[in-house]
Amino acid sequence: MPVAFKTIALIGRYKSQDVAAPLATLARLLRDAGCRVLVDQETVAASGVKDVPIVDYAEIGRRADLAVVLGGDGSMLSAARAFAPLRIPLIGVNQGRLGFTTDIALATMRRSMRSILAGDYSAEHRTMLRARVLRKKKVLIDNIALNDVVVSKGATGRLIELAVNIDHQFVYDLRSDGLITATPTGSTAYSLSSNGPILHPQVPGLVLVPISPHTLSNRPITVSDRSEIEIVMRRAGGAKLHLDGQPQADLQEGDEVIIRRSRHTARFIHPPGYDYFAMLRQKLHWSENPL
Amino acid sequence: MPVAFKTIALIGRYKSQDVAAPLATLARLLRDAGCRVLVDQETVAASGVKDVPIVDYAEIGRRADLAVVLGGDGSMLSAARAFAPLRIPLIGVNQGRLGFTTDIALATMRRSMRSILAGDYSAEHRTMLRARVLRKKKVLIDNIALNDVVVSKGATGRLIELAVNIDHQFVYDLRSDGLITATPTGSTAYSLSSNGPILHPQVPGLVLVPISPHTLSNRPITVSDRSEIEIVMRRAGGAKLHLDGQPQADLQEGDEVIIRRSRHTARFIHPPGYDYFAMLRQKLHWSENPL
Amino acid sequence: MPVAFKTIALIGRYKSQDVAAPLATLARLLRDAGCRVLVDQETVAASGVKDVPIVDYAEIGRRADLAVVLGGDGSMLSAARAFAPLRIPLIGVNQGRLGFTTDIALATMRRSMRSILAGDYSAEHRTMLRARVLRKKKVLIDNIALNDVVVSKGATGRLIELAVNIDHQFVYDLRSDGLITATPTGSTAYSLSSNGPILHPQVPGLVLVPISPHTLSNRPITVSDRSEIEIVMRRAGGAKLHLDGQPQADLQEGDEVIIRRSRHTARFIHPPGYDYFAMLRQKLHWSENPL
Amino acid sequence: MPVAFKTIALIGRYKSQDVAAPLATLARLLRDAGCRVLVDQETVAASGVKDVPIVDYAEIGRRADLAVVLGGDGSMLSAARAFAPLRIPLIGVNQGRLGFTTDIALATMRRSMRSILAGDYSAEHRTMLRARVLRKKKVLIDNIALNDVVVSKGATGRLIELAVNIDHQFVYDLRSDGLITATPTGSTAYSLSSNGPILHPQVPGLVLVPISPHTLSNRPITVSDRSEIEIVMRRAGGAKLHLDGQPQADLQEGDEVIIRRSRHTARFIHPPGYDYFAMLRQKLHWSENPL
Repeated sequence: MPVAFKTIALIGRYKSQDVAAPLATLARLLRDAGCRVLVDQETVAASGVKDVPIVDYAEIGRRADLAVVLGGDGSMLSAARAFAPLRIPLIGVNQGRLGFTTDIALATMRRSMRSILAGDYSAEHRTMLRARVLRKKKVLIDNIALNDVVVSKGATGRLIELAVNIDHQFVYDLRSDGLITATPTGSTAYSLSSNGPILHPQVPGLVLVPISPHTLSNRPITVSDRSEIEIVMRRAGGAKLHLDGQPQADLQEGDEVIIRRSRHTARFIHPPGYDYFAMLRQKLHWSENPL
Repeated sequence: MPVAFKTIALIGRYKSQDVAAPLATLARLLRDAGCRVLVDQETVAASGVKDVPIVDYAEIGRRADLAVVLGGDGSMLSAARAFAPLRIPLIGVNQGRLGFTTDIALATMRRSMRSILAGDYSAEHRTMLRARVLRKKKVLIDNIALNDVVVSKGATGRLIELAVNIDHQFVYDLRSDGLITATPTGSTAYSLSSNGPILHPQVPGLVLVPISPHTLSNRPITVSDRSEIEIVMRRAGGAKLHLDGQPQADLQEGDEVIIRRSRHTARFIHPPGYDYFAMLRQKLHWSENPL
Repeated sequence: MPVAFKTIALIGRYKSQDVAAPLATLARLLRDAGCRVLVDQETVAASGVKDVPIVDYAEIGRRADLAVVLGGDGSMLSAARAFAPLRIPLIGVNQGRLGFTTDIALATMRRSMRSILAGDYSAEHRTMLRARVLRKKKVLIDNIALNDVVVSKGATGRLIELAVNIDHQFVYDLRSDGLITATPTGSTAYSLSSNGPILHPQVPGLVLVPISPHTLSNRPITVSDRSEIEIVMRRAGGAKLHLDGQPQADLQEGDEVIIRRSRHTARFIHPPGYDYFAMLRQKLHWSENPL
Repeated sequence: MPVAFKTIALIGRYKSQDVAAPLATLARLLRDAGCRVLVDQETVAASGVKDVPIVDYAEIGRRADLAVVLGGDGSMLSAARAFAPLRIPLIGVNQGRLGFTTDIALATMRRSMRSILAGDYSAEHRTMLRARVLRKKKVLIDNIALNDVVVSKGATGRLIELAVNIDHQFVYDLRSDGLITATPTGSTAYSLSSNGPILHPQVPGLVLVPISPHTLSNRPITVSDRSEIEIVMRRAGGAKLHLDGQPQADLQEGDEVIIRRSRHTARFIHPPGYDYFAMLRQKLHWSENPL
C-alpha cells in the first residue's frame, strides 16, 4: 500500500538538543514505512542527528509532502509561517506537554504516524493573517501570521492611541497598552490571557482584543474574517508591531497597519480521534472545579 | 413613484401609553405617502389611537409588507419572534434612548421613513436560534429566539450542573449559575453583562457564555452557527430555560436542550447611513476614556 | 503534658455516610491523647459511629473547647455560623480534596492533630457578616454569615434593581442579576466565580461584587469592614437573600438589607506549616501555565 | 478671622499654557483673602504669570502650608511624590474634566477655596508606596509612588517571569506581561484597566494585579498594606520598573523589587461636600445602563 505522504521533512524545536532521540526514532519509522525523509539543517545542527539528507527550508518547500514538527506551539507557528505559502501540511508532536497545536504525544507518536501514513487522518485548514504596515503610502512590512497581529506600547511604557476602522468604517479610538487581532488559532494564545474569547477553528472570524483599555466598556469584538481591519497610529510613543510574538517594526505616528485574512492557510494533519474540545479541556483544566 | 412597502403595521411597546402621539404621527405620515396602515390591537388598546384598521398578529402576518416597532429592544425582540417566520421585515423606532436594534430616533423618524419608503434603505438578516427541550425523548418546548437561550439556576439559588456537547462532541461539564447561548444580536445583551464578547452581526457564529462558572479558566467560546449545541441537565435543582428573557420551562435532571440556528431570520430595515459601530460607540461610551 | 483542647466535638458532613471510618479513627486518637470526645447527633445518625457521647449543638456549645469538622467548605461554613457565637474554634479536615477552609488532609490527620493537641498550632480569626432585612421598619431577618450575603434575582429570571449606600453615602443604583457582599473568606467562593478579587484573610475589608451588571464599567469594590452596607430593593421581582448560599428571605420592593461586620468571628486552628498562599496555588492551579 | 492656610503654593500642569488665567485668578483670590502666594517656577515659565514670588520646589517645601495643583491626575501624582515627604497637603483643581484626585472644578474654584480657607474642609491621608530595587544586594532604586509600582515587559515584547513573595511567604510564579502593585488611590488607574478591583481609600490594603497572565485562574489579590511584597525577576528580557507611570529602571534577572507602604502619605484637602462615590459614579458612568 502506498504511503499517504511520500517525502516528509522533520523539524525540531529551534536550537533544542532534546529532539535528537525522538528525531532519530521518527526518521527510522518513516523510512521503514517507505517514506523519504529530509531533516531541516538547523534542527540537525542542534540535535546531532546523522544519516539523513540535510536540507534548508527552500528545499523542504520544493520536495516535502508533509512536515513533522517536534516541539511546542512556538515551533508550529514558525513552521506554519514558512510552509503555509508552500502548501505543505504540518503535524505537531509535543515532547510531553500537550500544546494547542502539537496534539500528538511522543509516547503515541509511532501509532499516530502509522495511521496517518495509512491515510487514516483528518486535515484542517487554519486561517492566517496578512499584515501590512503603510508609512507615507509606502509598504514597510508585508508579512503573515498564524496566531495574531499585536500593536503594543514599547519601551517607554506610555500608552498608545490608535483608531480602528473595519472595512473603511470607523470603529473606535483606543487608548490602551495595545490591541491584539487574533485568528481562531490565536484565540487560545495571547488573546486569551488578555480576556479574549475562544474562537473555534471553524468560525470564519477574527477577534479584536484591547490590552488594558482606558475605556472600561471596551470589550473584545469578533468580526468576519473577510473584513479588512485598519489600525491608524494616533500616538505611537515607541509602539511595536509583533506577528506571532515576533517583532516586525517600530511604529510611528500616522502609520497604518492593515490586517486581512491571508490567501494562505496553515494545513494541520491530525491522527484519528483528534478532538479540539478534549485538548481545550485538558489544557485549561476544565474538568476541575476548585470553587 | 410607488412606495417600497405598501402595507405597514404599527406596533407599540407592550401596554405603553406613551406611543399614542408618535403612533398617530406615523400613521398619518405613512398614509400621506400612500401606504395602507394597520395597527396591532394590543397597541391600540393601550395608546387609544383611533381611525386605523385594528388587527391581530395573524392578520398583520397575512397583510403587512413591513412592521414598524415603536419601543425598545424588548419590543423588537418579541416582534422578531412573531414576524420572522412570516418574513415580515422590521423597523425599530426608539423613543429617545437609542437601542441596540431600535436605531431610528423619534426626532428623525419622519425623514428616515421617507427615505425608506422611497427605497433608500439597507436590509440585513439577523440569525435566530431554535431551542428544543427533550424530556424522555419527547419534545417539551420548540421555540425561537433572536437574542439568546439561557439555562440558569432557579429559585433555590443552588448552582446547576450541565454537560455541553457540540455536534455530538463533548465540550465540558459546567457547574455554574447558568449558560448563555447568544446570537450576534444577543451578544450585546445579557451575554455582554456576563463578560461575553461582541459578535458583529455578519459573523456566522454563536457564543457560549458561562454565568459565574466554578472553573476559573472556563471562558466564552464562539462556535460556528451551523453547530448543534446540546445541553444535558446533570443537576437541575429548579433550573429554568429562558428564550430572549422569556421563561419557557422548568428543567429537570436529564432534560436535553438542543440549540440550532433557526431557519427563520429577523429582517431589519435601516435608514440610509446606518452604522453598527457608531451605535456601539454611543451605547457603550467608547469615546470617553475615564482612566 | 496536658492537651491544648480538653473536650473536642466531632462533626461530619451533613448526612454523609463516608465519615464513619475517619470519625472512629479520630475519636480513638483523641481519647488516647486524653481528650473527651463528643459527637454531633446528626453526624452519628448518618455515620453509625458508636461508643461516643452523642450530643446536640447546644451541648457542644456548652462543653466543647474545639470542634473538628470532617467535610468540605460547606460543612465548615455551617459549623462557623453555629459555633462562632459560642467562641468555639474549628479545625477542618477534608476527605481527599483540599478545601479553602478544610486544610488538613485525612492522610495526615493523625500527625496534624497530635501537633495541635501538643499546642503547636496557629489560630486565626476570620471576619463574619451580620445581615439584617428591614421591611417597613421591622426586622425580618437577623443572621450571620462567614462567606457572603447575596441578593439575587429569583425564579422569574427578571433582573433586579437596587440602590447601595455605604455609611449612609449613596454608592450606586444597580441593575443586575444580583450583588454579592463577601468577606475575605468568601472572596474565594461565589465572589471569585463572579470575577471578584481575592482578599487575604488579614485584610479588614469587604468586597461588593455585582453579578452580570448592566453597566459595563461597574467593577468590584473593596470597602472597609467597618462600613455599614445598605442595599435598598428598588425592583425586587422575586429577589432572594442568601447567606452562605442558604436561602433566608424573599425580598420585596422597599426592603432594606443592612450588612455589617458581625461581632462574632470564626476561629480557625491550623496545624504547623499552614500556608494560605500554598492552598490558593494548589486550588487554583497557579503553578501551571497553559498558554 | 485667620485663614486656615497662610502660605499657599500654586502649581500648574507641566508645560501647560492654559493655566495662566486660572492661576492669576487664583493668586488674586488668595491674596485678597490674606494668604501669601508662591508660584512654582516651571509653572510660571509656561504660563507667563507675573507679579508673584517665583520659587522652586525646595522653597515651596520650606515655606508653603498648602499646595494647589491646577491640572489632571498626572499633575497631582507628581505633586504628591514631591510634597508628601514635606507634609504639605494638596488641593486638586481640574480644568473642566473631573479627575479621580482633582475634584474641584475651575467653575466652582472660588467658592471651594473660600470654604477651605475658612477652615471648612475635610482632609484625608492616602497611602503611598516605597519601592526599592536590589541588585546583587545593592540598592539600585529607592523611591515612592502614590498610584502604583509596575513591573512590565520591555521593548522586546517577550513575556517576563517573576516570583512573588509576601512577608517572605511564596505566593506564586507568574508568567505575564507584568504585575501591578497598586494603592487604593492607584486602584482606579492602570490597575482598573487591567481588571483590578476598586479599593476604597480607607481600606488598608494593596492590590496585586497581573497583566495578561498565562495562568487563567490567576486573579487580583488584595493584601494588607502592612505587607512586604517582594518580586524576584526570574526572566527579565528587558523588563522595566515604573512608579506612577514614570520609568525607573531596566530590570535584570535576579533583581528584587521590594514594595512596602511608605512612611509618607499624600494629604488631600477637599472642599465641603466631597464625595468619593459621587466622583466614581460620574467618572465611570455608573448611572447609565446601556444594556
